[in-house]
Amino acid sequence: MISGADVNGRVLYQEGDHSFIWLGADPNLKRGVVQTNQYLIIDKGRGTLVDPGGVHLFSRVVAVVSRFININDIDTIIFSHQDPDVSSGIALWLGVTSAKIYVSSLWLRFLPHFGIVDTSRVLGIEDTASSLNLAGGNRLRFVPAHFLHSTGNYTVFDDASKIMFSGDIGAAVFPEGDEYVFVEDFDEHVKLMETFHRRYMAGNAVLRKWVSLIKSLGPSMICPQHGAIFREDTAGRFLDWLDGLRCGTDDLDSLYQMGKDV
Amino acid sequence: MISGADVNGRVLYQEGDHSFIWLGADPNLKRGVVQTNQYLIIDKGRGTLVDPGGVHLFSRVVAVVSRFININDIDTIIFSHQDPDVSSGIALWLGVTSAKIYVSSLWLRFLPHFGIVDTSRVLGIEDTASSLNLAGGNRLRFVPAHFLHSTGNYTVFDDASKIMFSGDIGAAVFPEGDEYVFVEDFDEHVKLMETFHRRYMAGNAVLRKWVSLIKSLGPSMICPQHGAIFREDTAGRFLDWLDGLRCGTDDLDSLYQMGKDV
Repeated sequence: MISGADVNGRVLYQEGDHSFIWLGADPNLKRGVVQTNQYLIIDKGRGTLVDPGGVHLFSRVVAVVSRFININDIDTIIFSHQDPDVSSGIALWLGVTSAKIYVSSLWLRFLPHFGIVDTSRVLGIEDTASSLNLAGGNRLRFVPAHFLHSTGNYTVFDDASKIMFSGDIGAAVFPEGDEYVFVEDFDEHVKLMETFHRRYMAGNAVLRKWVSLIKSLGPSMICPQHGAIFREDTAGRFLDWLDGLRCGTDDLDSLYQMGKDV
Repeated sequence: MISGADVNGRVLYQEGDHSFIWLGADPNLKRGVVQTNQYLIIDKGRGTLVDPGGVHLFSRVVAVVSRFININDIDTIIFSHQDPDVSSGIALWLGVTSAKIYVSSLWLRFLPHFGIVDTSRVLGIEDTASSLNLAGGNRLRFVPAHFLHSTGNYTVFDDASKIMFSGDIGAAVFPEGDEYVFVEDFDEHVKLMETFHRRYMAGNAVLRKWVSLIKSLGPSMICPQHGAIFREDTAGRFLDWLDGLRCGTDDLDSLYQMGKDV
């Protein structure tokens, strides 16, 4: 159960003028709609939003962000990929901020289909840089996570806090009312992740590529877009679990069964 | 160049009370926005829309559909997958029709993030049937196309016309103003498909699974969501080309390069 206080978010890291913030739980989450996490990184008074979410979360996320920073000071928004729960709020966010949006260049021509979008403010990650220098001199790194699950997919590593934003990797599906912020019992938590990862992640060889990049960075926490946050030893156990997971196209025959009528 | 008349669509097949219709080109397509095709299947006076498209196409698609059938007679909408160019118009389509929407059950919890969506009218394909019986007794088959590119992805085969709707498989990116409806010169057309398929499709083994299912169905045409339609011998050449294509995770090392700063 998420406590009432967590509706307003939690500071995961703060040191000097750099902070990494989890933007809280949605108290109005409806049955049948996937729960999402949003994150805010503040560096020397300038804000970066990571996967700020879909249209129907917009007003809640604006309200929580405003507790930590003036909306006008958000200058960067990162979308890990093109799914509606990540990016359908794009036109609204472009409207209330003057931020630039970073996303895999694979989706640049697709995002305008969400509605009225000023494409000059949407930048393809491959076309610009593999990392982003923040106002205070700190750096965010875009770490490829293609086909996990999205074809063009980036996870984000914050050098200062060593927090890894992992997008859909690490997603857990909670039973209603049983949400929690941090993974405490890894063995129990795996049960909430297993079905999703086995079906959505493209294959074990791809997972292993991502895990090896992440291990080389030595993250202090791993923060997914759905589910709960991994700290210290649960982060390591999570990476080891992924490393051995058979998934997606590893079993093509079951994936490509035609229905019984055919 | 698409002719002026093609703004209003083309009947690809008509026999008795069954027809398969391409819903025309968008005369206002903006630079940097991917071109999309929409299709309408009419069976005994009832309509099925396939990938009707994003928010900004909605009024044009409604207008063209209305040339062929009363909007009230649309009872089925199929989304091949969750991308915004396919499905961001979901709330608008639910509003103007009483249709049920079919999509891979992988996206049922994600689509509500597009906005206000009556989830009782959105059905997961795996949870319902592998095919759909139409009003006139004809049948549409949902053919798995997972990881090509979307994780949960269906192509659609119309038994009566033997037309295959292939979603993103077969997509071509036209130089501006050089769009055409049917593929005539396959060797030239491949140049417009190659970059997209090499990057977005998950791997050759996956493509080959899909190709073998499609070949067993013997399609008369293959109709993609972007690009041009394959008929007769170009359909066969297209399937052979896919069968040998190295793509996506086949070259993991290049896909998982970190940027040079890291």
